[in-house]
Amino acid sequence: MKRRIFFKNSILAGAAGLASADAFGANAVKVPSDAVILFQGDSITDGHRHKDILTPNDPRGLGNGYVSLLAADLLRKYPARGFKIFNRGISGNKVFQLAERWKEDCIDLKPTVLSILIGVNDFWHTKNGNYSGTLDKYRNDYINLLEQTRNELPEIKLIIAEPFAVPGIRAVDHTWYPAFDEYRFVAKEMAGIFKATFIPCQKLFDRAAKKAPGVYWTHDGVHPTHAGSRLMADAWGKALG
Amino acid sequence: MKRRIFFKNSILAGAAGLASADAFGANAVKVPSDAVILFQGDSITDGHRHKDILTPNDPRGLGNGYVSLLAADLLRKYPARGFKIFNRGISGNKVFQLAERWKEDCIDLKPTVLSILIGVNDFWHTKNGNYSGTLDKYRNDYINLLEQTRNELPEIKLIIAEPFAVPGIRAVDHTWYPAFDEYRFVAKEMAGIFKATFIPCQKLFDRAAKKAPGVYWTHDGVHPTHAGSRLMADAWGKALG
Repeated sequence: MKRRIFFKNSILAGAAGLASADAFGANAVKVPSDAVILFQGDSITDGHRHKDILTPNDPRGLGNGYVSLLAADLLRKYPARGFKIFNRGISGNKVFQLAERWKEDCIDLKPTVLSILIGVNDFWHTKNGNYSGTLDKYRNDYINLLEQTRNELPEIKLIIAEPFAVPGIRAVDHTWYPAFDEYRFVAKEMAGIFKATFIPCQKLFDRAAKKAPGVYWTHDGVHPTHAGSRLMADAWGKALG
Repeated sequence: MKRRIFFKNSILAGAAGLASADAFGANAVKVPSDAVILFQGDSITDGHRHKDILTPNDPRGLGNGYVSLLAADLLRKYPARGFKIFNRGISGNKVFQLAERWKEDCIDLKPTVLSILIGVNDFWHTKNGNYSGTLDKYRNDYINLLEQTRNELPEIKLIIAEPFAVPGIRAVDHTWYPAFDEYRFVAKEMAGIFKATFIPCQKLFDRAAKKAPGVYWTHDGVHPTHAGSRLMADAWGKALG
């Protein structure tokens, strides 16, 4: 209970009080040999992966998104390190749905490094009336998930990525704001509290919009195009030292 | 007919007399804005792509292999160039099967740049008794395909990749040699005759075997692992300047 109170206070202190890991550097994750690297999240992580292929490093099991692009980089760059890379993202997932499958799809895999990108559906799915979760539920579910993870895998290295959206493109209109921004801030708070490396996805897409229209990087405002996936893979690559 | 005789004589001159484009440099393909970039070949190119997705730049339509990895690099690096990248590789294909679908799957797409990786099945499928094609058939089919291509698309920029195999891994045993090497040489001859940029895939995999066992780069001696696909994408990336 004391620990929970500490979390709440940290959150109240706000994102400004938390270390920024945007530039990585000393905050980059050092990945040891024989590491199990697990990617968790929603459709953006899923990337239409073949759900029946559960072995690591298989391109069909890694999907067509940033996980696959990043995995190819890591496996080619470090052939002697014996990395085992898993994708367990599932399209449509919100935090509570990660929790429902966390033992099988995270704890039992004993990841050395765990990357989580979750949150856009926790907000988005409230807009069609089929989901009634709140920002507080997102925050509390996320804290519980990460507490469980740290308790069961004390040595785990965490990467927490920011949910993002590009306004003005299909799914994303002005009604998303400012409410959606709060979900981004919660993810950053989680990274601070749980000493995770934070990946500022929103900034990635905001910066890219200076080089080509937003729709070049995400076709519906939420899901990256292939170019957008490459942006993301580059950011994760830097986060992994 | 004269042209055909020229080709035959060129081939008789052997690979040694042809320019080596291994190091690219001046031989790298310059890709103009709005280029249509088409990848053709067999399963290695196919990469389990979704055959019903025919639009360019869609990661599901690009598959899980080197084409997808390379496309992500190009689309991220050159957001203003408007590249349209297509994968039309089909698993199991030999040269004559490319020819059967060439109008629809090549000519009609009006590629600015065409990359072809074909030949391993022209040899491999003779070994199970289900295909009786010879080296001469491979060579003649390939010449006819490239003549047709140059005639119908005179400005096309060609990339021809070398079929490759890694001996001692599953499908590839000593009975492949020296016969299979001749198929590699024919692909290189094609590059010389048709002034294509040549990608020496065999060298890629031979060199990689010094960093990790061959099976790390190709799980069955023929099909690349994800790490092997990244090797290939890097080589194509250099060939594309």
